Amino acid sequence: MAVYTDVAAEELADFLKAYDIGELLSYKGIAEGVENSNYLLHTTAGSFFLTLYEKRVAVDDLPFFLGLMGHLAMHGIVCPQPVKARSGETLGYLAGRPAAIIDFLEGVWPRKPNVTHCAAAGEALAKLHLAGRDFPMRRANALSVSSWRPLFEQAAPCVDTVQHGLHDFLKAELDYLERRWPDNLPAGIVHADLFPDNVLFLGDRLSGLIDFYFACNDFFSYDVAICLNAWCFEPDHSFNVTKARALLGAYNRERALSGAEQAALPLLARGAALRFLLTRLVDFLNVPAGALVKPKDPLEYVRKLRFQQSVGNIREYGVAASGLLV
Amino acid sequence: MAVYTDVAAEELADFLKAYDIGELLSYKGIAEGVENSNYLLHTTAGSFFLTLYEKRVAVDDLPFFLGLMGHLAMHGIVCPQPVKARSGETLGYLAGRPAAIIDFLEGVWPRKPNVTHCAAAGEALAKLHLAGRDFPMRRANALSVSSWRPLFEQAAPCVDTVQHGLHDFLKAELDYLERRWPDNLPAGIVHADLFPDNVLFLGDRLSGLIDFYFACNDFFSYDVAICLNAWCFEPDHSFNVTKARALLGAYNRERALSGAEQAALPLLARGAALRFLLTRLVDFLNVPAGALVKPKDPLEYVRKLRFQQSVGNIREYGVAASGLLV
Repeated sequence: MAVYTDVAAEELADFLKAYDIGELLSYKGIAEGVENSNYLLHTTAGSFFLTLYEKRVAVDDLPFFLGLMGHLAMHGIVCPQPVKARSGETLGYLAGRPAAIIDFLEGVWPRKPNVTHCAAAGEALAKLHLAGRDFPMRRANALSVSSWRPLFEQAAPCVDTVQHGLHDFLKAELDYLERRWPDNLPAGIVHADLFPDNVLFLGDRLSGLIDFYFACNDFFSYDVAICLNAWCFEPDHSFNVTKARALLGAYNRERALSGAEQAALPLLARGAALRFLLTRLVDFLNVPAGALVKPKDPLEYVRKLRFQQSVGNIREYGVAASGLLV
Repeated sequence: MAVYTDVAAEELADFLKAYDIGELLSYKGIAEGVENSNYLLHTTAGSFFLTLYEKRVAVDDLPFFLGLMGHLAMHGIVCPQPVKARSGETLGYLAGRPAAIIDFLEGVWPRKPNVTHCAAAGEALAKLHLAGRDFPMRRANALSVSSWRPLFEQAAPCVDTVQHGLHDFLKAELDYLERRWPDNLPAGIVHADLFPDNVLFLGDRLSGLIDFYFACNDFFSYDVAICLNAWCFEPDHSFNVTKARALLGAYNRERALSGAEQAALPLLARGAALRFLLTRLVDFLNVPAGALVKPKDPLEYVRKLRFQQSVGNIREYGVAASGLLV
């Protein structure tokens, strides 16, 4: 949670003169998002997000993110759409930062996703993959396999203070994944961070996907693997095969996973677990003393990684029983 | 800025079942307020604030604050009104905290208040004083003159690290004010914290007063003195007599300041400056390292106090020229 950049009412009112979204009624800094400063605006035309991009987001990537949100929204994905200024631009400057006005989506994210939520997430992910196919811009995944060793080396000196033996565990996993990581699975635009807090619901109905700031080009099935880890574990760390079956089945009905993708899924899920484990470790080891930001628990992903290491075959996710993927 | 308490969508939806404010559409933690956790809710019935009261707010005071907001709103003051649950109660419990749903007021606070804003603040303050006269509850001002010596003693050991000589300066001022503080000026309900960030505007029109969590019984003219310090200094620390004249004149038209109140105003303004100087000092000296909360600058109030020490007579606030208060 953070608002890094303060915006004065007077300068915001000036900024909004470039847009056709009515008069400013109120704006409140939102205590979420660690990369950007976010404000919820009320204007006479409705509710909007104002995002100021802080230094951790590469300015060069903003046209990709904003363009992708616009593209997906035009192709039937309910996601926040950047609002164009009268000039046609979606990216402006405010308070010394690159800034954008983005549609506000109503909805809340489920803290305890149920099977219906998991199915909805799987279906939405597949639709996103399909909708992104003709998006003309590309962005490499900055957090794919080649980034993991540098992250590991950054955390390595202190990693055993988090859990004894973690250094050697991570090193062995990294060696294993680097040797086996696939290079020829179906690929395209992926969300790369479709955790429950990025999927909004009204009741059990999915009302929108948000936070496209990790979106990039990568394997579709790697995106599925990220969701398996994010949606299908219970608070007690057990893996819920009913949720996995719902998520994979709903995905597969929209976009059929090929045999190669199905075979690779356990390996990809190990990689997905390692990726979030490593970034959480680095964040955890670098949190400033006394900061209000509570870092996410890296050990949650140690447990998920150990589970995924034990999976020999996609059937162990529960899909064989229903036969949805065969 | 802070959201201390996380609220799950599921428990919030449950909580709202006790109210007639429609279905939950979204809620966002607001990065403002250091005493409470605040969420902006959208429901099918409109926008609301959800406030969770953290431990710095005495639970015993909540009926006073909520009752006062309701009373003032019923008496023509535009201020947030607590929403009653179907039971008639305004105070509930959520996520282990006392919690209330409160009307959301549109408006923005001026970072650079102009003369029109100052006049509007003065008028609103007088109307608040009048509207509060028949409010039946009482709350002593926990930050009045008797609290200043304990605050000073808390800060004293480190105060010269903030500014050389500050210890003796504060001690002399405290001795002076304790000896001369009045005890028989007209008194009643005061806001006690009517800074620009607690006065909302739409354009130059005042749209509401907020944050009644320092409200208490004290001298009306002390509340005016707090506003003089909060509204009438320029960013370069100079005192703007045009703004003071506007604020005092507008106040006086709604509620005439007596001769005794006018005579006491420079002394009350010294006290008001010392009160905010002391609490800012204590906050400044106790901010945790690395915290995202940036403490307010105590030295701003050293300069204001020095100015107020130089004022011999209310005419020096610029009001003699217009004759509004004579």
